[in-house]
Amino acid sequence: MTAGSLWVVGLGPGPDCWVTPEATAAAAQATDLVGYGPYIDRLPAREGQHRHSSDNRVELDRARHALELAASGRRVAVVSGGDPGVFAMAAAIFEAVEAGPPEWRGLDIRVAPGVSAMQAAAARLGAPLGHDFCAISLSDNLKPWSVVERRLTAAAQGDFVIAFYNPASRARPTQIHDAFALLRRLKDGATPVAFARAVGRPDERIVLTTLEDADPGVADMSTLVLVGSGETRFLDRPGGEPWLFTPRHYGGGR
Amino acid sequence: MTAGSLWVVGLGPGPDCWVTPEATAAAAQATDLVGYGPYIDRLPAREGQHRHSSDNRVELDRARHALELAASGRRVAVVSGGDPGVFAMAAAIFEAVEAGPPEWRGLDIRVAPGVSAMQAAAARLGAPLGHDFCAISLSDNLKPWSVVERRLTAAAQGDFVIAFYNPASRARPTQIHDAFALLRRLKDGATPVAFARAVGRPDERIVLTTLEDADPGVADMSTLVLVGSGETRFLDRPGGEPWLFTPRHYGGGR
Repeated sequence: MTAGSLWVVGLGPGPDCWVTPEATAAAAQATDLVGYGPYIDRLPAREGQHRHSSDNRVELDRARHALELAASGRRVAVVSGGDPGVFAMAAAIFEAVEAGPPEWRGLDIRVAPGVSAMQAAAARLGAPLGHDFCAISLSDNLKPWSVVERRLTAAAQGDFVIAFYNPASRARPTQIHDAFALLRRLKDGATPVAFARAVGRPDERIVLTTLEDADPGVADMSTLVLVGSGETRFLDRPGGEPWLFTPRHYGGGR
Repeated sequence: MTAGSLWVVGLGPGPDCWVTPEATAAAAQATDLVGYGPYIDRLPAREGQHRHSSDNRVELDRARHALELAASGRRVAVVSGGDPGVFAMAAAIFEAVEAGPPEWRGLDIRVAPGVSAMQAAAARLGAPLGHDFCAISLSDNLKPWSVVERRLTAAAQGDFVIAFYNPASRARPTQIHDAFALLRRLKDGATPVAFARAVGRPDERIVLTTLEDADPGVADMSTLVLVGSGETRFLDRPGGEPWLFTPRHYGGGR
């Protein structure tokens, strides 16, 4: 049996203009596409190519299925939104390899990076990630809330810009409220905040506000939430929403 | 005079396969390219297109020059390695706009995101950024070292995966040593560490080690340094260096 291969491919936040040539080629050359249905639907149909769509809540099952296909000799592309290495399918693949049969460790596995949601949001807003930042997933499906609290506290103490992934879902509507309540105790109320929903897609919606004025309820599962550092600021411009940026220096430079 | 425009364009870590179609188009359509020489040299010469190369230590001068060109009616692309929004030219542009003449605020400024060094490194290594992480620039040209210490301490207390940008240069050879000394006091010595130099380029070099065994002296200005969280681990495989990944769950999940 021919040895198969498995690419974990990042399709970026949505529009084709943000898909790398590597990702396009890896998806085109696959015999089998595996992924959440809406991501697979972004790719053109190809004769003879098998499309294995699934829903979004079975990442480990999907990873195992992809690895089984690769082990059987198929050329598999697991497609992911954003960057598969950032809160996405790449980690699920390696978790499955670790827990799976020894032969999976010998598979040819590659990851194609992509533009992640925080980068698309940052580009649209200005340059809020221009200085030290952290990225935190608010999902507590996979970690206790105490870990989220610990990380939020550390992020505030370190005065990092914070990017929140998975801020809310129907099953978890309250966590972004709890996170903002915690941050309001630790950070200046005037800190800039942005809710950047579905950046680059037709239903894009941007809300610019401050930590004290923010309504965390505007965040849904398609929203990337940014909370500034002590240096992050708005820059007014005529005829448009202000820019949001974090300068490269800190505390006035030297 | 026709209003000009300014794109801040991310060319990714090096190879063409990681340059987005948006970045390629923005660079191709510009009347003027502005940037660090080696980044401009990655782009094909085009008849009638002006190339303004500079060295790498005058970001604010370069930003002002680009804004002056745009204000004079030119269609300018400021090219940057990686993602211009992550420790790169986008913040410098908005700093220059903030300090510049009022008419600069009315310019058509756009940012094209790109694959940043930490994403290329993560893709090559496995999935080390699969869970909460932070990105810290070790350059103290623009911030006091006390801020770096504060952020390193917070990153350790929050048990984030840490990506270091600008870990060392000829003018700053000791900071990565100081950073590792601090982290060794706060984190487990067995924590996985990766030095990922020039990923995707011919002179790529990967060193996998642990916090206690690491020689920070291997880092240069082209190196992205990753330090794991308490969950980050190596995954051995036959016939190759181990994978490095951070699972999506924390503390055993629930």
